[in-house]
Amino acid sequence: MAQEYSGRFRRENSTVPISNYLEGIKKGDRTVLAKAITLIESNHPDHFRAGQQLLKDIIPLSGKSVRLGITGVPGAGKSTFIDRFGTELCKMGKKVAVLAIDPSSTMTGGSILGDKTRMESLSREENAFIRPSPSSGTLGGVHRKTRESIMLCEAAGFDVILVETIGVGQSEVVVRTMVDMFFMLTITGAGDDLQGMKKGMMELVDGIIITKADGANKENAIRTRNEYSQILRFLRPATEGWQTKAYTCSSITGEGIIDIWHVVQQFVKITKQSGIFFERRRKQTNDWLMTSIVEKLQQSFFQNEVIKEMLPVIQQDVEHGRLPVSAAVEQLMKLYLNEK
Amino acid sequence: MAQEYSGRFRRENSTVPISNYLEGIKKGDRTVLAKAITLIESNHPDHFRAGQQLLKDIIPLSGKSVRLGITGVPGAGKSTFIDRFGTELCKMGKKVAVLAIDPSSTMTGGSILGDKTRMESLSREENAFIRPSPSSGTLGGVHRKTRESIMLCEAAGFDVILVETIGVGQSEVVVRTMVDMFFMLTITGAGDDLQGMKKGMMELVDGIIITKADGANKENAIRTRNEYSQILRFLRPATEGWQTKAYTCSSITGEGIIDIWHVVQQFVKITKQSGIFFERRRKQTNDWLMTSIVEKLQQSFFQNEVIKEMLPVIQQDVEHGRLPVSAAVEQLMKLYLNEK
Repeated sequence: MAQEYSGRFRRENSTVPISNYLEGIKKGDRTVLAKAITLIESNHPDHFRAGQQLLKDIIPLSGKSVRLGITGVPGAGKSTFIDRFGTELCKMGKKVAVLAIDPSSTMTGGSILGDKTRMESLSREENAFIRPSPSSGTLGGVHRKTRESIMLCEAAGFDVILVETIGVGQSEVVVRTMVDMFFMLTITGAGDDLQGMKKGMMELVDGIIITKADGANKENAIRTRNEYSQILRFLRPATEGWQTKAYTCSSITGEGIIDIWHVVQQFVKITKQSGIFFERRRKQTNDWLMTSIVEKLQQSFFQNEVIKEMLPVIQQDVEHGRLPVSAAVEQLMKLYLNEK
Repeated sequence: MAQEYSGRFRRENSTVPISNYLEGIKKGDRTVLAKAITLIESNHPDHFRAGQQLLKDIIPLSGKSVRLGITGVPGAGKSTFIDRFGTELCKMGKKVAVLAIDPSSTMTGGSILGDKTRMESLSREENAFIRPSPSSGTLGGVHRKTRESIMLCEAAGFDVILVETIGVGQSEVVVRTMVDMFFMLTITGAGDDLQGMKKGMMELVDGIIITKADGANKENAIRTRNEYSQILRFLRPATEGWQTKAYTCSSITGEGIIDIWHVVQQFVKITKQSGIFFERRRKQTNDWLMTSIVEKLQQSFFQNEVIKEMLPVIQQDVEHGRLPVSAAVEQLMKLYLNEK
């Protein structure tokens, strides 16, 4: 994680007090927002404390956006969709933040150019903010601080937050726990699209978007949409009171793009009326707390100096049958808890 | 877990010193073995200490069996297979222990009769020991102390340990981490057996046994076996250097039963020669230690008195946006580590 921390930022950071971050974020300053995200992503103890203070200060300003998750295999048209969709929203006067995957980089520092070319139109918009995450070293583009980044973007006044993932491993399950609404993007293929889908994906999303519905491909796209809709009718929806459906659109012609935004508005309206929207956010926050506790606990244990010294010795004793596992665990717990 | 603890045992236990357990186990006394398993399954602090001492004492006596896992959906013929297979092994002079599922009971105490009737022939054998686990409240028949039970059975001189699971949730993945060789039992159906199989099962087992290969069903069973064998050739085997194959047998006629034992012997010979056998056991022990540490750590945290008192308060603060998650985690960790 240390190398994520570019020299340029480190220099600047030491001269920027927290109040400046807060002020800049309140003003919606995108440069300050970018630096604030880098600050909370940092593992340096000083930055951690500063980041905590900043997060505490911005909590009251956060929570007012719509958080949208976007998943889809590489080639499904995620970046062109986000580019077009985001640009249309900006033109409507919305402020759009994208927490995106940067396939061109393994470092946060050097990836801005990559995303400028990936989302060319959106990156020129005044009201857009694009934060690239390297796809490697993160969970398919989901950074361990993505939740905090969402809050910072919200505090900076962004109305729509798009979180992109390539669905590697469990990344789309993780994204589901941090967004209000979740879309899967897909394209039509040789008719075996549905078979190729990851198990359980359809039960995880609130909408399936078939992209590239233009030219010779349009008819195929509509057929695929109908096939999905057929199946979706028999599945339990990801969100209570919302029927997951399939949609088509074209990021080239723009057809169907604004309709997706209307679907989002509809979703927000229905789930806010039923209370599901707020209940989900409450639950997400609580789950996040619980997961963080368990992570921190393990980190604290395995990085404890006495444990680091004694664990290999005890492991040897257990492997060679000199100590039962449960006795070893008791012994390690004693060492851990007395040490502190 | 408290109700697992029958009154009868509690009375007797208080009068039995650890040395008597050890002696009884060394003699292969099945009544003492049953009581010893109940002792290590107990959550009572006194029993925990006694159980630890006993486990430490028996470690040098354990490890000398072949540990076989048996999985299969209800109706696959697991109990009739184990009954016949175990009886044949006993007749060869082997000592056979079965850690079995008891579908008739939700309590360990009252389930012996249930298994007497399920494995009628085996339960009459002098050299057999059947330990039923309730299927509910455990992981498909796998008790959280099954590993320790295996060790106790080995110390009591049992050569073959059969661990049965119904493959609910992740139970067959758990069983795989505690046995040397793993069989899946299945029957022939309407030709769609292969589709109905749990994803990844074939990559988890060292052999697939098609049971009920008798009478009018024999031909079907052979066809199914060939279908499985075809597929298995293209899969990565669960055990390096061992080709997973499909076999047929009949627990009624006994045909193919002894052949399964020859397969087991072959497996043990090959994996002991390559060292895989010992390497797997070493790795299993280490994984067990690591899993136990993480479990114990969480238990210690969430059962801590200060944490139990403060967690709901902090949860409220986090949910209402008065405290960032990471700050909450820091605060809870401080409370936890200062408390002890």
